[in-house]
Amino acid sequence: MRNVAVRNIDRAPQEVVDALGELGVATVHEAQGRTGLLNAYMRPIYSGARVGGSAVTALAHPGDNWMLHVAAELCRPGDIIVVALSSPNTDGMFGELLATSFRARGARGLVLDAGCRDVRELTEMQFPVWSKAVSAKGTVKATVGSANVPVVCAGALVNPGDVIVADDDGVVVVPRRQAESVLKAAKERVAKEEEKRARLGSGELGLDIYGMREPLAKAGLRYVERPEDAQD
Amino acid sequence: MRNVAVRNIDRAPQEVVDALGELGVATVHEAQGRTGLLNAYMRPIYSGARVGGSAVTALAHPGDNWMLHVAAELCRPGDIIVVALSSPNTDGMFGELLATSFRARGARGLVLDAGCRDVRELTEMQFPVWSKAVSAKGTVKATVGSANVPVVCAGALVNPGDVIVADDDGVVVVPRRQAESVLKAAKERVAKEEEKRARLGSGELGLDIYGMREPLAKAGLRYVERPEDAQD
Amino acid sequence: MRNVAVRNIDRAPQEVVDALGELGVATVHEAQGRTGLLNAYMRPIYSGARVGGSAVTALAHPGDNWMLHVAAELCRPGDIIVVALSSPNTDGMFGELLATSFRARGARGLVLDAGCRDVRELTEMQFPVWSKAVSAKGTVKATVGSANVPVVCAGALVNPGDVIVADDDGVVVVPRRQAESVLKAAKERVAKEEEKRARLGSGELGLDIYGMREPLAKAGLRYVERPEDAQD
Amino acid sequence: MRNVAVRNIDRAPQEVVDALGELGVATVHEAQGRTGLLNAYMRPIYSGARVGGSAVTALAHPGDNWMLHVAAELCRPGDIIVVALSSPNTDGMFGELLATSFRARGARGLVLDAGCRDVRELTEMQFPVWSKAVSAKGTVKATVGSANVPVVCAGALVNPGDVIVADDDGVVVVPRRQAESVLKAAKERVAKEEEKRARLGSGELGLDIYGMREPLAKAGLRYVERPEDAQD
Amino acid sequence: MRNVAVRNIDRAPQEVVDALGELGVATVHEAQGRTGLLNAYMRPIYSGARVGGSAVTALAHPGDNWMLHVAAELCRPGDIIVVALSSPNTDGMFGELLATSFRARGARGLVLDAGCRDVRELTEMQFPVWSKAVSAKGTVKATVGSANVPVVCAGALVNPGDVIVADDDGVVVVPRRQAESVLKAAKERVAKEEEKRARLGSGELGLDIYGMREPLAKAGLRYVERPEDAQD
Amino acid sequence: MRNVAVRNIDRAPQEVVDALGELGVATVHEAQGRTGLLNAYMRPIYSGARVGGSAVTALAHPGDNWMLHVAAELCRPGDIIVVALSSPNTDGMFGELLATSFRARGARGLVLDAGCRDVRELTEMQFPVWSKAVSAKGTVKATVGSANVPVVCAGALVNPGDVIVADDDGVVVVPRRQAESVLKAAKERVAKEEEKRARLGSGELGLDIYGMREPLAKAGLRYVERPEDAQD
Repeated sequence: MRNVAVRNIDRAPQEVVDALGELGVATVHEAQGRTGLLNAYMRPIYSGARVGGSAVTALAHPGDNWMLHVAAELCRPGDIIVVALSSPNTDGMFGELLATSFRARGARGLVLDAGCRDVRELTEMQFPVWSKAVSAKGTVKATVGSANVPVVCAGALVNPGDVIVADDDGVVVVPRRQAESVLKAAKERVAKEEEKRARLGSGELGLDIYGMREPLAKAGLRYVERPEDAQD
Repeated sequence: MRNVAVRNIDRAPQEVVDALGELGVATVHEAQGRTGLLNAYMRPIYSGARVGGSAVTALAHPGDNWMLHVAAELCRPGDIIVVALSSPNTDGMFGELLATSFRARGARGLVLDAGCRDVRELTEMQFPVWSKAVSAKGTVKATVGSANVPVVCAGALVNPGDVIVADDDGVVVVPRRQAESVLKAAKERVAKEEEKRARLGSGELGLDIYGMREPLAKAGLRYVERPEDAQD
Repeated sequence: MRNVAVRNIDRAPQEVVDALGELGVATVHEAQGRTGLLNAYMRPIYSGARVGGSAVTALAHPGDNWMLHVAAELCRPGDIIVVALSSPNTDGMFGELLATSFRARGARGLVLDAGCRDVRELTEMQFPVWSKAVSAKGTVKATVGSANVPVVCAGALVNPGDVIVADDDGVVVVPRRQAESVLKAAKERVAKEEEKRARLGSGELGLDIYGMREPLAKAGLRYVERPEDAQD
Repeated sequence: MRNVAVRNIDRAPQEVVDALGELGVATVHEAQGRTGLLNAYMRPIYSGARVGGSAVTALAHPGDNWMLHVAAELCRPGDIIVVALSSPNTDGMFGELLATSFRARGARGLVLDAGCRDVRELTEMQFPVWSKAVSAKGTVKATVGSANVPVVCAGALVNPGDVIVADDDGVVVVPRRQAESVLKAAKERVAKEEEKRARLGSGELGLDIYGMREPLAKAGLRYVERPEDAQD
Repeated sequence: MRNVAVRNIDRAPQEVVDALGELGVATVHEAQGRTGLLNAYMRPIYSGARVGGSAVTALAHPGDNWMLHVAAELCRPGDIIVVALSSPNTDGMFGELLATSFRARGARGLVLDAGCRDVRELTEMQFPVWSKAVSAKGTVKATVGSANVPVVCAGALVNPGDVIVADDDGVVVVPRRQAESVLKAAKERVAKEEEKRARLGSGELGLDIYGMREPLAKAGLRYVERPEDAQD
Repeated sequence: MRNVAVRNIDRAPQEVVDALGELGVATVHEAQGRTGLLNAYMRPIYSGARVGGSAVTALAHPGDNWMLHVAAELCRPGDIIVVALSSPNTDGMFGELLATSFRARGARGLVLDAGCRDVRELTEMQFPVWSKAVSAKGTVKATVGSANVPVVCAGALVNPGDVIVADDDGVVVVPRRQAESVLKAAKERVAKEEEKRARLGSGELGLDIYGMREPLAKAGLRYVERPEDAQD
């Protein structure tokens, strides 16, 4: 699968993608069994964005953003471009010109395992980017990679067409075929949390709500009244 | 002191804790002789918070947030929960459900040598957290640690009941018994700085205000007029 | 050039410095051939500042901010102080008192390869700082360095009088004698980008605007219709 | 594929695996088109080992080495165990007792995206380990993961049965089905290099052997005689 | 406890210290309940050393090794000097001259949360050092710290007189009063491991020796025969 | 000075270069006033090498080793090639084929602010390399840089023809024109150290040899007999 660009990929139903996007990263990550998170070094360039989209992937080389132009053509409204690197690099592969192009093609955001620049302009445009670094370092267009192939981005496997959810907590990927079942599980989770939130907010303890006192005691937790009683 | 939770700890007088909180990290750190700072990797999840509180401590294991529920019961209004890890980890041990619980118990904030999630929701709640990372990675409840025992959090020793001050500059711990003398020293420092600020603001130089010219010359600083005079 | 402070340095014309500052880091960096960027770990302490200034340099030692007071005297309106360290350190060398002094001397900002503190106060003052870390750790005044000598700051060579441009994307240095030619190149670049931005914004692809299709094919990029066609 | 252990996997022919192991990481990585390298933070615990083997994979949780015992049963003579973590962690998941078990099962080595301990004993045993860290930190056996499922280890996708080659340069993974074609390409590469080595060793320049002078000139490289001629 | 040097401290019985040293870091760390490890970034400057000693502590400032001379006077035969820093720094605080002095005073080694230099000479002398970095960067003697006070070194609390054990796996601290009970537990652990080693070496599985099959099944591990059976 | 290769540079007298090489990094660094050290992340790929040479410099781009071939032609017997990168990267830019070429041209070693591969073969050849990383990641030959121009390598300014000294402690650069005076100072330093070594080796304390007791007392160090006397 080297130096290949795949034109047509399958995507999850848009309403599923949108609904996952609204639920946010932490909820979706839990709902699919605590899998699919990208490494925590992936941070948004500005606060407050929360998006869902279908992954259009690019595999690029350090210091070379050629494949981002290839990806621009492949993306459709509702997509999020996901860029993986063949080796670690923080050069500024993406800025407001490319964002203008991506937005014109309908892209909702970018997940970039490298550096991003034009942060001020991107913030003004409200084009959300999650990246490994902010760097103005310019890149060349000299070495070909691939697009819409499976990539490992920030430690997570992303297949083209997978659902990407990203917000202030980071980025999570949901395998396309599991999108609907994960959405169902996430909604159930949210419903359950509402009741717990009310109880916790009234001062009730998690120890009691979740029945943790006995397991904690069994696991060896010993309560003492005063610090001086705590010696082994 | 393994797997112990201590119910009752001594705290500094609340008005001392509050006053230290208002003075902020840099002032308090200087006032106690440049000690007690947590490692600079501890950053607030949002800007602008400044708090003081009494430390309720938890020692947790990587990827396991069980002890945070234990800590919730131990905290009183005015406390700040301080979580140390038995080995380095950035999983997202804390989110808005626990924050709801902590707030209901009167906690003013959290200092967490691990990851935090639900950053958007915590910002909306204005529940301040200082953490090593932002990560949505979920945690288990499988291994017991301790609560209200001395811990090393982000490189600093924190005893339960010590005063924690945290703001945009980071986090500092003041040993409980020194809280009053540190407060006194901090107030004196603030008073002295006011006059210096005025003089510096009028264009007077620190070189003159602090009498540095002679010590600098003695220490070997040599002034020259032009770059070409600077050769060795 | 050890332990020397140079009183008089040459600067680029102020209108050139100002114009470079308005153009921002990414544009200036590109215009001078992708050189002169400081390491990407240099980050602004608050968002939104964009400045240009002439470099007054200081070479300081870890945990020692004595030379910043020396630099204060050397700076003139329109300058930016650039502090390099003799070995890596993140102690909080700079806070609002020194900022008050620097501002009174006309400095427009600080580039500091170490830690900064009083972030809240500096944000209120809108005195911009680009630093390696935020840290409240206090420093001593015990070891002499140099001022207005060539320094390596965050991996880039900065000569006193060079032009510094800094914004949310980081920090770039322009050699003094090249300031005017870089400004000219940067303005041409901006002019050219305007047309491209309009075309990209209308949905036209970079692949076509930049004529990349043929070079990509030559370089070996192969398009396929479906993922299953992508196997090697 | 959660919490699953797969008993039977396909492996590449043993003689292919062995031959790839002898060729070493750099050669194999080049031969398969510069893909498949694990992150450079994966280092051998002692120098001089070079091995090839079939991957038996485990997905473990931070601070928990339970799945390594599961992997022990699944491995056959000639295998290399590859351990991925669900989030970054450096605890010491592996030591000489487990190595004794792995060796008894025929394993040739371990690739571990976490910490290793008993380095002295493992060196004496000559059981090679490539890990992210050396750490004596003990682990629990509390949370179940998976074994012989696809994993992302140190940034590379590893499927069970893929070929692992590891030496002082790091670790590379070769997809099982490509093992034979990669071996062929690697052997050709080695043959070609022999001639080049002789020519380079006699003082001939790469510039001439590879015909680089013209492309360099075309790409803009300008030769000058003396430093003072190098100004722009 | 600022700027204090304590002349006389209590130490554990030398035969206990020696016996702990022989058992090594991993065993001692496990025997005291997986506590007391210094951060994994502390690495030996050469392989193969394994020592135990009583801690003589120093708290030094970044780039300043004055307190190491103070510590030299305080140490007795069988001691290990433990140096903590007031903020992170990697300057080369220690070299062969100081090692000559330390050895003459009977010190067995050094644990240094900073940089070490003269690595070649120290290796020839076989004076073992565990440090955060190797760096030739020289240091000054300008700022006073403390000696033989409690310190946090590489994330672990070390009290003067505590037992330090260090080897290729890192460094662990045993509180002085617990030294004998930890030694007892460690010896029992070693005895138990011998039998397990024999069984594992004969090919028996940890799954059976430790009775893990049922707990794994209860915890949800599901065995399947072939990869294609592993889908959720 | 972009995309330029300078054919002829001035070098320090070979006997001066050789003598500096024999003295080693720590001594030379001290002798020139604690300046010129490269960042401590530059490590030798094997232990025990100590070399001096004249710098032939190359400025390369991330993932591109084209300029190393250019540098090969420019180096003469006694040189050390120094490679700086235009942005941080750890790809394996150098291996045994290039080493064969460099050696044939008379080069004594390589200082590389990127990754190195073929570590086993380079160790067998005893061709010493100091690098930022070990990585087998292959590189392209697509983008032109410069050779024999001033570069910033691992945080230090290196001019072509400067003297490079490298050993197990790292790498230091001595400006060409200062080579003789630094050599003189280094020899004096070595002579002085001999006497100190003897005195320290006999158990005499640095506190007495260097007359530190009074300065320490003046600086505020307070001796107490027992830990309990150390409270503030």
